[in-house]
Amino acid sequence: MESLKEEVERANSIAVERMMEARPYLIGLDEASRAIPHLKKGMALTHAGPPISWEKASGPLRGAIIGAALYEGWADTPEKAERLAETGEIALQPNHHNDSVAPMAGVISPSMRVFVVKEQNSSKKYYTNINEGLGKVLRYGAYSKDVLERLRYLNGEFSTVVGSALSELVAEKQGVDLKTLIAQAIHMGDECHNRNVAATSLLFRELAPYIVRVSDRQLAEKAFKTIDGNNHFFVNIAMAACKAMAEQAADIKYSTVVYTISRNGTETGIRVSGLPGEWFTAPATIPRGLYFTGFNETDANPDIGDSTITETAGIGSAAIAASPAIVKFVGGDVRTALEITERMSKITITKHKYFTIPYLEFEGSPTGVDVRKVLRLGLPPVADTGIAHRMPGVGQIGAGIVELPMDCFKKALRRYAEFYGLL
Amino acid sequence: MESLKEEVERANSIAVERMMEARPYLIGLDEASRAIPHLKKGMALTHAGPPISWEKASGPLRGAIIGAALYEGWADTPEKAERLAETGEIALQPNHHNDSVAPMAGVISPSMRVFVVKEQNSSKKYYTNINEGLGKVLRYGAYSKDVLERLRYLNGEFSTVVGSALSELVAEKQGVDLKTLIAQAIHMGDECHNRNVAATSLLFRELAPYIVRVSDRQLAEKAFKTIDGNNHFFVNIAMAACKAMAEQAADIKYSTVVYTISRNGTETGIRVSGLPGEWFTAPATIPRGLYFTGFNETDANPDIGDSTITETAGIGSAAIAASPAIVKFVGGDVRTALEITERMSKITITKHKYFTIPYLEFEGSPTGVDVRKVLRLGLPPVADTGIAHRMPGVGQIGAGIVELPMDCFKKALRRYAEFYGLL
Repeated sequence: MESLKEEVERANSIAVERMMEARPYLIGLDEASRAIPHLKKGMALTHAGPPISWEKASGPLRGAIIGAALYEGWADTPEKAERLAETGEIALQPNHHNDSVAPMAGVISPSMRVFVVKEQNSSKKYYTNINEGLGKVLRYGAYSKDVLERLRYLNGEFSTVVGSALSELVAEKQGVDLKTLIAQAIHMGDECHNRNVAATSLLFRELAPYIVRVSDRQLAEKAFKTIDGNNHFFVNIAMAACKAMAEQAADIKYSTVVYTISRNGTETGIRVSGLPGEWFTAPATIPRGLYFTGFNETDANPDIGDSTITETAGIGSAAIAASPAIVKFVGGDVRTALEITERMSKITITKHKYFTIPYLEFEGSPTGVDVRKVLRLGLPPVADTGIAHRMPGVGQIGAGIVELPMDCFKKALRRYAEFYGLL
Repeated sequence: MESLKEEVERANSIAVERMMEARPYLIGLDEASRAIPHLKKGMALTHAGPPISWEKASGPLRGAIIGAALYEGWADTPEKAERLAETGEIALQPNHHNDSVAPMAGVISPSMRVFVVKEQNSSKKYYTNINEGLGKVLRYGAYSKDVLERLRYLNGEFSTVVGSALSELVAEKQGVDLKTLIAQAIHMGDECHNRNVAATSLLFRELAPYIVRVSDRQLAEKAFKTIDGNNHFFVNIAMAACKAMAEQAADIKYSTVVYTISRNGTETGIRVSGLPGEWFTAPATIPRGLYFTGFNETDANPDIGDSTITETAGIGSAAIAASPAIVKFVGGDVRTALEITERMSKITITKHKYFTIPYLEFEGSPTGVDVRKVLRLGLPPVADTGIAHRMPGVGQIGAGIVELPMDCFKKALRRYAEFYGLL
């Protein structure tokens, strides 16, 4: 057994090393149907979390599917959209099976635009959609006329401007170096899951000279106001960067490092490096947090979204000690934030080489969740997250902290023992 | 004596209340000779710190005076410029006598452009010049051809763009609300003296839509790259905001609150609310810090610049506990940063209502240095500051922490006792 332990440790070292040494660059904005295989097939959508059917989908995911069908013009009423989904005419697949990630419901439809993040070591590309802002938005299950209108602007005019700007930028340099940008943002109080004001500002500064170069005044001004009006703009891009980093840790024999954590609003699922492709799921838990006026926890949907890819890659809750101001958004006090980072330290393999936390004397952020440690200590990871209303059509109602379900990790370790013949 | 103590306390409460309730807005960019009274007089310059003559000026101040004379075309060689200064043909006055502030040498010449900050409660205006970036720059006493070239761009083309953008912005709203912007930046790890990356980013976001509206593509792109290329861009504006706030605390009978702290490179001077207009000076101290490659403390000039107006108004070193990442620039560790804020707490009147430090559970930043407390505890304020080479023509050689000279405070309290008949 001693030698297996050594094998596992070597494998885990390789996994976190590859994750940390990944080099994600933002290189463009493309049409989803061109970039994402599943979306080439006509009436097809991707969604957050492990695989799920319409039947088992929660309110916000159903809302987002309805909204996307209306947006694509596949249906002209929510009822007709529902029927298309019910009958399976709209095909669903997880983002994580399509090199993509997206927050909350995570629904991406064929004509939407997706940011393209290239991992330079592997030359692999990863995708994410454009953040719509807070409140009544598709990713939280809202699909009213103004929600679709905003999607049309973001995926139309706005994407034309930002896409051309990115092409100009890429012609001058390799793209936007996201690992460096995230590292800087963490030194500016972001943890890049629920606080992205610094990262959004830094990206704004990177893009501005190119936006002005490629677009006419009015469109440029509107694009600036769009990004400036949404301090969460960067989160999707952070997620794609984290996906690019986390994926480098996948498929390493013996490794117990988690390379995917994601929720579809019904179930939470994880995937483990030494067991590639297999999902280990459990019913999604409900976040505790701060609610917007008029809402409380009886309105909350279970945990949803691909955004826990940030915690998977060593930021988000893992780096929350760098982000004391976030407690005004997700609840708790600064001590809580420090405790969360400490908790994540106990169940991870290493401290990040590049993402460092100034308040902890520039110690690295805890990186590489280890299934063994989670079970040994009985401590599942926590994430800080947005909270969706449980009914379709409403939207975001708060933000908070969620403890992931222990059962995913139990199932994964059981399977691991079986797979490697340890039973 | 009991009743005098009460009078002093009441006066000090009023002083800090006015300081904190001040509302500085960035409203424009104007020609210095039009805005600053002293600069209307022909060959005239303002400088940092208490009043000083050429004879007593240190290397970096002399360098900046030479550079400004060359820049204005009053002389065509450094030697001729020196002669004009020696003979008193170039008239010198402190920024602080002219409603202005500027970092390091702080030299402003008539044709330069100055940012205009309006304090909305008093309708009074305050001024500062445009930050040139780090290294070989006029404010650190450098005056080579490239230094002057850069000044010409910043005060020419760049100012035209940014000035027009500010005019557009003011037509839509009151201006840029600097108190709110600084408060946000402190939540993003700035202390707005030596770390301004967040504030610069937030200002960039505010200005961008207006810059693109008023200027042609090439100039806009160049302006964006100029601001993006200088993470210290905001410091001058932070200083003008702090001047606007600190001045509201001036001239309150019995108050022992310090409303000016400034250094000219030879002497450090303070002014006290209950003794308005009077400077209390002592030889400037030398910062301890981190030096750029090739330099050490034997090269350092004594402390210089108006930038300690930030500490006067409750930010800078007072808020350094919010800015752990700064220790990579000024030296020390995060514990040192926390200790400095704690030290400032001991010698100040209150905790700021609007500038709060997330890491200290959103406690306010220590505000309103009290001459009595400084003497009672034998603890002069500290500032975190840039370090200039002691010779003219070199520039910045590092950054660090400086303890202000105790003698200013001793002199002030002695004069206070005399003025209020307590001797």
